[in-house]
Amino acid sequence: MIGIIMGSQSDLIVMAEAGRVLEELGVGFEITVVSAHRTPERMFEYAQKAVEKGFRAIIAGAGGAAHLPGMVASLTTLPVIGVPIKSSNSIDGWDSVLSILQMPAGVPVATVALNGAKNAGILAAQIVGAFDETVAQKLKKFKEELKTKVLESVTDIEQNGWKPKKIGF
Amino acid sequence: MIGIIMGSQSDLIVMAEAGRVLEELGVGFEITVVSAHRTPERMFEYAQKAVEKGFRAIIAGAGGAAHLPGMVASLTTLPVIGVPIKSSNSIDGWDSVLSILQMPAGVPVATVALNGAKNAGILAAQIVGAFDETVAQKLKKFKEELKTKVLESVTDIEQNGWKPKKIGF
Amino acid sequence: MIGIIMGSQSDLIVMAEAGRVLEELGVGFEITVVSAHRTPERMFEYAQKAVEKGFRAIIAGAGGAAHLPGMVASLTTLPVIGVPIKSSNSIDGWDSVLSILQMPAGVPVATVALNGAKNAGILAAQIVGAFDETVAQKLKKFKEELKTKVLESVTDIEQNGWKPKKIGF
Amino acid sequence: MIGIIMGSQSDLIVMAEAGRVLEELGVGFEITVVSAHRTPERMFEYAQKAVEKGFRAIIAGAGGAAHLPGMVASLTTLPVIGVPIKSSNSIDGWDSVLSILQMPAGVPVATVALNGAKNAGILAAQIVGAFDETVAQKLKKFKEELKTKVLESVTDIEQNGWKPKKIGF
Amino acid sequence: MIGIIMGSQSDLIVMAEAGRVLEELGVGFEITVVSAHRTPERMFEYAQKAVEKGFRAIIAGAGGAAHLPGMVASLTTLPVIGVPIKSSNSIDGWDSVLSILQMPAGVPVATVALNGAKNAGILAAQIVGAFDETVAQKLKKFKEELKTKVLESVTDIEQNGWKPKKIGF
Amino acid sequence: MIGIIMGSQSDLIVMAEAGRVLEELGVGFEITVVSAHRTPERMFEYAQKAVEKGFRAIIAGAGGAAHLPGMVASLTTLPVIGVPIKSSNSIDGWDSVLSILQMPAGVPVATVALNGAKNAGILAAQIVGAFDETVAQKLKKFKEELKTKVLESVTDIEQNGWKPKKIGF
Amino acid sequence: MIGIIMGSQSDLIVMAEAGRVLEELGVGFEITVVSAHRTPERMFEYAQKAVEKGFRAIIAGAGGAAHLPGMVASLTTLPVIGVPIKSSNSIDGWDSVLSILQMPAGVPVATVALNGAKNAGILAAQIVGAFDETVAQKLKKFKEELKTKVLESVTDIEQNGWKPKKIGF
Amino acid sequence: MIGIIMGSQSDLIVMAEAGRVLEELGVGFEITVVSAHRTPERMFEYAQKAVEKGFRAIIAGAGGAAHLPGMVASLTTLPVIGVPIKSSNSIDGWDSVLSILQMPAGVPVATVALNGAKNAGILAAQIVGAFDETVAQKLKKFKEELKTKVLESVTDIEQNGWKPKKIGF
Repeated sequence: MIGIIMGSQSDLIVMAEAGRVLEELGVGFEITVVSAHRTPERMFEYAQKAVEKGFRAIIAGAGGAAHLPGMVASLTTLPVIGVPIKSSNSIDGWDSVLSILQMPAGVPVATVALNGAKNAGILAAQIVGAFDETVAQKLKKFKEELKTKVLESVTDIEQNGWKPKKIGF
Repeated sequence: MIGIIMGSQSDLIVMAEAGRVLEELGVGFEITVVSAHRTPERMFEYAQKAVEKGFRAIIAGAGGAAHLPGMVASLTTLPVIGVPIKSSNSIDGWDSVLSILQMPAGVPVATVALNGAKNAGILAAQIVGAFDETVAQKLKKFKEELKTKVLESVTDIEQNGWKPKKIGF
Repeated sequence: MIGIIMGSQSDLIVMAEAGRVLEELGVGFEITVVSAHRTPERMFEYAQKAVEKGFRAIIAGAGGAAHLPGMVASLTTLPVIGVPIKSSNSIDGWDSVLSILQMPAGVPVATVALNGAKNAGILAAQIVGAFDETVAQKLKKFKEELKTKVLESVTDIEQNGWKPKKIGF
Repeated sequence: MIGIIMGSQSDLIVMAEAGRVLEELGVGFEITVVSAHRTPERMFEYAQKAVEKGFRAIIAGAGGAAHLPGMVASLTTLPVIGVPIKSSNSIDGWDSVLSILQMPAGVPVATVALNGAKNAGILAAQIVGAFDETVAQKLKKFKEELKTKVLESVTDIEQNGWKPKKIGF
Repeated sequence: MIGIIMGSQSDLIVMAEAGRVLEELGVGFEITVVSAHRTPERMFEYAQKAVEKGFRAIIAGAGGAAHLPGMVASLTTLPVIGVPIKSSNSIDGWDSVLSILQMPAGVPVATVALNGAKNAGILAAQIVGAFDETVAQKLKKFKEELKTKVLESVTDIEQNGWKPKKIGF
Repeated sequence: MIGIIMGSQSDLIVMAEAGRVLEELGVGFEITVVSAHRTPERMFEYAQKAVEKGFRAIIAGAGGAAHLPGMVASLTTLPVIGVPIKSSNSIDGWDSVLSILQMPAGVPVATVALNGAKNAGILAAQIVGAFDETVAQKLKKFKEELKTKVLESVTDIEQNGWKPKKIGF
Repeated sequence: MIGIIMGSQSDLIVMAEAGRVLEELGVGFEITVVSAHRTPERMFEYAQKAVEKGFRAIIAGAGGAAHLPGMVASLTTLPVIGVPIKSSNSIDGWDSVLSILQMPAGVPVATVALNGAKNAGILAAQIVGAFDETVAQKLKKFKEELKTKVLESVTDIEQNGWKPKKIGF
Repeated sequence: MIGIIMGSQSDLIVMAEAGRVLEELGVGFEITVVSAHRTPERMFEYAQKAVEKGFRAIIAGAGGAAHLPGMVASLTTLPVIGVPIKSSNSIDGWDSVLSILQMPAGVPVATVALNGAKNAGILAAQIVGAFDETVAQKLKKFKEELKTKVLESVTDIEQNGWKPKKIGF
C-alpha cells in the first residue's frame, strides 16, 4: 500500500499520474490532500500513522516552497518520494525542485523530475517490487512495453519517412 | 520580545548577528535551536506557544531545503522572518532562498537576504518600533549612524586619496 | 493603517490582492502609485511622511530592477514589505526577486514570493495583529478557513474520486 | 543487500558516507566503481545482474553530465538512488543535479541532495526497513539520535550562551 | 554517411532540421529512433556498429536528463554531435543542455545550441567537408546564401523603411 | 548621428523602439542589418567607418550567442550600446544578456535590459545630450513626461478606485 | 569630467580601476562614496548637481540589491554607467547584475561586466572621446596597446613553446 | 593538422590539455593566441587562411563573453570546436558556456564542457579519425586505457577497502 498526498487539490491534475501507473502495476494506494502549511496537524497525524496503516512508501507532491515531502520524511521512517510541481507563480519550477531535493543529512526525500508523478508511482512500485515477485514481474513487463513503443516508432519512420507531415503541427 | 531560532547550532555564527542588533536596539529576545526535520514536535510546540510567551515576531534561520521558517509560519499568526543560510552543500544559496521565499498564498514568510541575520534583527525591531516609540527612536539613531559611517569614509577618501594602499589587500 | 504602493498602475492587477486581503482582515490601508525611477521626489516624500500619516508598515511592489521597496526602506524606520512582480520583460522574475531581497546590512526589506501581494497583505496584518487583539483574532479565523478549504477538498476526493474529470481540463 | 557504485574512485570521498550509514543501520552492501562512459559494458552487466545478486536497491553517484544513475535505472527494475556529486569542473553542481533528476517518464531515479551520499544510504535503509522490522527499528533509533543531538545543542546554548566564542571561528 | 538518432519520435519535429540541411548539402544520412533509457541494448548495438556502417559522425538529440549523446559517445570513436531538446517538462532546457555538454574528460560530445538540429546537420557536413572537396564547396555556397539573405533585408529596409508595419504583428 | 544595427531583420520589431525614441528626442540615426556571423566583413567595414560617418555612438541588438555588440566595440573607439534580444530558441534571454554584458577588460559594451531597445535609444541621446544642450533639454522634458504619466495614474486611482475592473482582464 | 561613486568604501578596491584608466586616458574625474540606502539625501543632491558640476557621465558601482546606478539615473539626464560588484553575501553576483541591468523603459543604465570598473572607465572615456579628438586619439592608442600585448604573447609562445612551465602555477 | 587558439595567453593553462592529448593521439597541431576583441584583424586572417593551411578543424578557447569560437566559425567552413573557459570575473562559467553554445542557425560551434580542452583535443582527433584509420586505432586504444584505469580502481578498492584513508584528504 502506497500513500499519495499533495498540498492542494489543484495538484491532482499532475499527481493522478502516480495513481494511474500504480493501478497498472497492481500496487494498492490511497490518494488524499494534506497541506503542510494549511493543515500542519493533519500532516503530522498522516505521517505518524503511515507505518501502522501498512504503507510501504509515501508519495508527496507540492509546488513553490514545497515543504510537504520533507516534513513528512521528518515524521516517518518510511521512504518518502517527492514530486516537485511547477505551480503558477513558481520561478520556473526551481523553487519546488530545490526545496524538495536539498534535504539536510539525516532526512532524505527521494526526489523525481519536475511534475514527474508518473515516475514517483513507478519508483514506489519498484520499492515494493524489490520484495514482491508479482510486482517485479509487472515492472519487467512495463519495461518491455516501453521498448515496444520505441520499436513501433522505428517502424513508423521506416515506413512513412522522417519528414514530419505538415498537418499535425 | 522576539524569538530567534535556527535549524542547527552551526547556524549560530550567522544568526548571532540578529541577537547582537536586537541588543543594540533595546529589544528583548530569546535564542534557541529548533529543527524542522530533526525535532518536528519541538517546532510545533515552539510555534504554538509563541503568542502566549509574548513574542511579537519570530526570526527563523535555516539552510538548504529550509522548511523551518515556513512551517513555523503555518503554526502561528505572528509575523515570521526567514533568514536563508548558505550552508556547506547548498547550491550557492539558491535552495535556502527559494524554499523560504516562495511560500504559497495564505502563509507569508518575511524573507531577508542570504545570511542576512542582522537585517532580520532590524526588521523585527522595526515591527516593534511601529508600535513602540522608544524602539522607533533607537531605529532613527541607528539609521543616523549608518549615514555617519558613510560620511566618514567620504572624508577619509578626501584626505587620504582614492587609491587603495597596497598594504591592507 | 498600511500604505500600499507600486511602481506602475499596470502592477495593480497583482497588488490589488494586498488590498483585498487587508479588507477581509479589517486593517485599513491606502493604495497609490509611486515610481522610484519616474517620480523619485514623490517617493522621498511618501516615505518620509509615512510615520506621521500613522502607517504601521508599507507594502511596495515592483518589477525588473525593482528599487522601490529598498529605497522606501532607506527613508523610513517602518517595516517595508517588498513584492517582486514578474513584469513583461523580466528575466523570469529573478531580477525583481533579487533586487528586492538582497538588501545590504542595515536596511531590510521583508520580501514575499514572486507576485505574492496577497501574502504581503497578510504579513502586514500579522504585524498589526502582533499588537492588536482584534486583528489577531481575524488572522486566526483566516487560518481556520485555509484549513477548512483543504478539508473540503479531502471530502470532495473521497466522494468523487481522484481521477480528474476530462471536462475541466 | 545494497549495491553502491560511483563513476570514479575520486568520488569515494563523497560516496563512502553511504557505506558508513548503512553499516550503522545494519544493512549489507557492496561498493565498487562502475563508469557509464568509460566502462559501459561493465555498467550493463552490473545493472542486469543486480536482481539475481539479491540487491534491493542500487545507490549510484556521479558528477558533471552524470549518466550512471539513469542508465542503471534503464537496465533494472530495482529502485535506483542517484547522488549528484559536485566535481571539479562542474557548473556549481547544476549539471549533475539536473542530469540525474530530470529522467523521462518511465525510468525514475530517486535523487537526493548534492553530495548527499549519507541520505542515499538512509533512503536505501528505509526501503529495506519498509519490509524488515529490524532495520525499521534501527531507523527509529537513528531518528531519535538526530533529535537528541539537537536537544544537546539547546542545552549547550542555555548553559554557555548564544554568542559564538571568538576562538573556534 | 551520417547517423541521426533521437530519444523519442516526438523529437522528430526538431531533429528533422538536421536531415533537411544534410539533404541540401549533399551528405547522406539515416534517421531513426534510439532511446538510451527505453532501448539501452539497441543503443549499444547502434553505437557499436556505427563505424562498420560507414558513418563519419552521429547526431543524437535528446531532452531532459539527456543521456543518449553521451552514452553513444562512450561506445564509439566517431565524433558525436549532441542536440539538447527543450521537451515539455524540461526546466527551461537547462537539463538537456547540461546533461549533454558537461561530459567528463575522455568522452567528448560536440554540443550545439538548444533545439539546434539544423546546426548539428551543418556541423556534420563540415566534418565531412574537411576531407571532401565537393561538400566543402557546398558549404561555401551555403555561407554565401546566408550573406545574401542578410543583404536582401538591408535592401528591404532601405526601400521600405525600418518601421515595422502594423499588419504582420 | 547614431548608428542602429541588429543581427537579423526579425529583430526590427524590438529594435525599432530605439529609432522611435531617438526621433522623439531629436537625434538623427541610421538603421540597418549587420550580422556578425553571416556578414562578418560587412560588420568590420561598418564598425571601421563609424567615426568617419560622424556617428557618436552605435546601438547594436542581437540574440542568443550575441557577438555583434562586442565585435563592433572591438573595432571602434565609439561607445557601443548593446541590446540583448530574447530570440525564439534563447535560454530565457540569459544567453544574449551574458554574451553582451560580460566583455573582457579593455573592450566595454554599454548593456541595457533584455529587449531594452527604447532605453538604448535614450542612452544614446544622453551621450549626445552630455555635449548638446538642445538634446539635454529634450531629455529633461522626456523625464517630466514620465513623471506626468505616473501622476495621472495616481489621479485615476483616486477617482476610479484601486480595484481592477473585471473587464480589461 | 566624470563622477565616480560607489555604495561603500569597501568597493574602492574594485572601483579604483575606473579611476586608473581615466588617468591613463587623460579624462578628469572625481571619486567619492554615495550610498543609496544609507545616504539617500546625499545621493539625491549628488545626482541633481551632476550637470552643473560639469560631469559628462557618472560611473556608479554597487553590490547586492544595487540601487545606486538606477536611482542616480532617475535623477539626472547624464549617461550613468553601472558597475555590478560581487560583494561578500552576493548570490554569485547575479543580484547586482540584475538590479543594475534590468531598468524599466525610460531610465537606462549602461551596465558593464561584473566587477568591470576598468571597462566603466573606458566607456566613460569613449563617451567623451565621441566629442573630443584628444581623448579619441588616446583611445586609439589604448586599443593599439591591447593588440601589441596579444602579439607579444604570440611571440612568447613561438619562442618558448606552449607547454606551461611547472613553476608559475 | 588542427589549429588551437585562445583569447589570451593566460588561457594556456587550460588549453594546453588539448595539445597534450593531440600529441598522444598522433595528430599534428599548431597553438597560438588570437583575440577576437583585441586583435580582430588577426582573427579574420587566421580563420580565412585555415583551409589553405591544411587544418581539418579549429579548437578555440575563450572566457566571459566568449566570441572567438563563434566568430572564427563565421569565417570558415571548417568545424570549429569551442572550449568555454571559467575566467576570473566569469559568472560561474555561465557566460562563456552560453556565448559559445547558443550560436544562431547557420553557424555551428561544437561546444565541449567548461574548461574541457582535453575533450576538445579528443573531438578533433575523432574528426580526423573518421577518415584516417591510424588515428582511429589510436582512439580505440585510448578508450581501452580509460577502461583499464577504471578496472584498476575496482581492484584497488577490492584489495584496500572502500573507506578513504584519513591521510590523503
